[in-house]
Amino acid sequence: MADSGKLYGIGVGPGDPELLTLKACALIRSLDAIAYPTNGEGHSLARSIAADVIPAESVEIPIHVPMVQEREPGRAAFDQGSLEIAGHLDAGKHVGYLCVGDPLFYGSFIYLAARLGEKHPIEVVPGVTSLGACAARLGQPLAARNEVFRVIPAPLSADQLTTELASADSAAVIKVGRHFEKVRGVLRALDLAGRAGLVAEATGEGETVTPVEDVPDDAQGYFSTILVRRGDPQW
Amino acid sequence: MADSGKLYGIGVGPGDPELLTLKACALIRSLDAIAYPTNGEGHSLARSIAADVIPAESVEIPIHVPMVQEREPGRAAFDQGSLEIAGHLDAGKHVGYLCVGDPLFYGSFIYLAARLGEKHPIEVVPGVTSLGACAARLGQPLAARNEVFRVIPAPLSADQLTTELASADSAAVIKVGRHFEKVRGVLRALDLAGRAGLVAEATGEGETVTPVEDVPDDAQGYFSTILVRRGDPQW
Repeated sequence: MADSGKLYGIGVGPGDPELLTLKACALIRSLDAIAYPTNGEGHSLARSIAADVIPAESVEIPIHVPMVQEREPGRAAFDQGSLEIAGHLDAGKHVGYLCVGDPLFYGSFIYLAARLGEKHPIEVVPGVTSLGACAARLGQPLAARNEVFRVIPAPLSADQLTTELASADSAAVIKVGRHFEKVRGVLRALDLAGRAGLVAEATGEGETVTPVEDVPDDAQGYFSTILVRRGDPQW
Repeated sequence: MADSGKLYGIGVGPGDPELLTLKACALIRSLDAIAYPTNGEGHSLARSIAADVIPAESVEIPIHVPMVQEREPGRAAFDQGSLEIAGHLDAGKHVGYLCVGDPLFYGSFIYLAARLGEKHPIEVVPGVTSLGACAARLGQPLAARNEVFRVIPAPLSADQLTTELASADSAAVIKVGRHFEKVRGVLRALDLAGRAGLVAEATGEGETVTPVEDVPDDAQGYFSTILVRRGDPQW
């Protein structure tokens, strides 16, 4: 039996293909197979970011992740995907799994590593997260000096969001999507909404940058983030 | 008078030159002048990461940042450096300022932007932070699902560190350096030290990865970070 191939978790950055790292590009060009998550319609943002460097001869392994609230369908998708990837690894092939942003920062690579990490060697190539990209677009620091910076998932309850935001020097609320009105309500109650900016699809083709108080009352896409900081907003 | 040149804040990543982005490389190769911070001995980690892509004909602008606790000498260094950079911008030259990690994530570019942003156009190119690199080396997620992730500067008081770490799902304590024993004491009091790992110079030549309880009682370098997470440590 061949030695196991290696599984690489590869961060491809927030959206602009120019924010791929040299290491990610070299790896993607050299690996036997490339896996990535796709949404319900079969589109993969991670693959689209790296499209220009995926060789035509690469084996591709899409993992169809259902966009539903329940966790079971997602678990089944990663069970199935990890079985397919394990087949390649067992044959001595090296496989890369593409992640938007960084693989270990709320990335779905974590679910693959949990299933494959005991039997197969794993290496992670860090990537540019959307947070730095959002700050760049808003023209404000994420955090400076001795400020505490908090990353807060928007699906948390309004009470949890209030607790975290009330005492944060600076914060990013991630995965905003359909939770926007709840988050804006919390920010208004804390008198922070006027200091907050929303960035959707940072550095990607559909990028938008909007002060939170200027956002109309309708749905936002999944890849949106709100940054809010108590310190001097002008750098 | 010429139109102002543009000031670029360029993230060069945590240490491995292969973690430069394509965009950072292209910009560094094309700009008229490259600025960067240096420590007291004149060494610049940011410059060393990007050394292979800085053209021989680039004007270089080192900014000597004194490694002292007081803020005034640092302010004077950035006052002086921003004057020199402004001279190039006023002559219509484009200038890049290299930052380890990401320019807006505790980066010294924030100080330059505060001084130059009103009169000169600014663009920030985000970079890979050390946090993703530290997680990659420790083989654990920074954060997953709906966990709150906190970034906590080690110079804070033991009381502040305790407050932040006591209620964090997952945290990175940054700028550990000479504050290591204080941080370890707080982690021990919270029964978290056994779950914490220290990474120094992640992905750089002097990289070390050590469980916090295995660190000997002596000083650590500046570029060190402690990660601690309550969730499943094995992915």
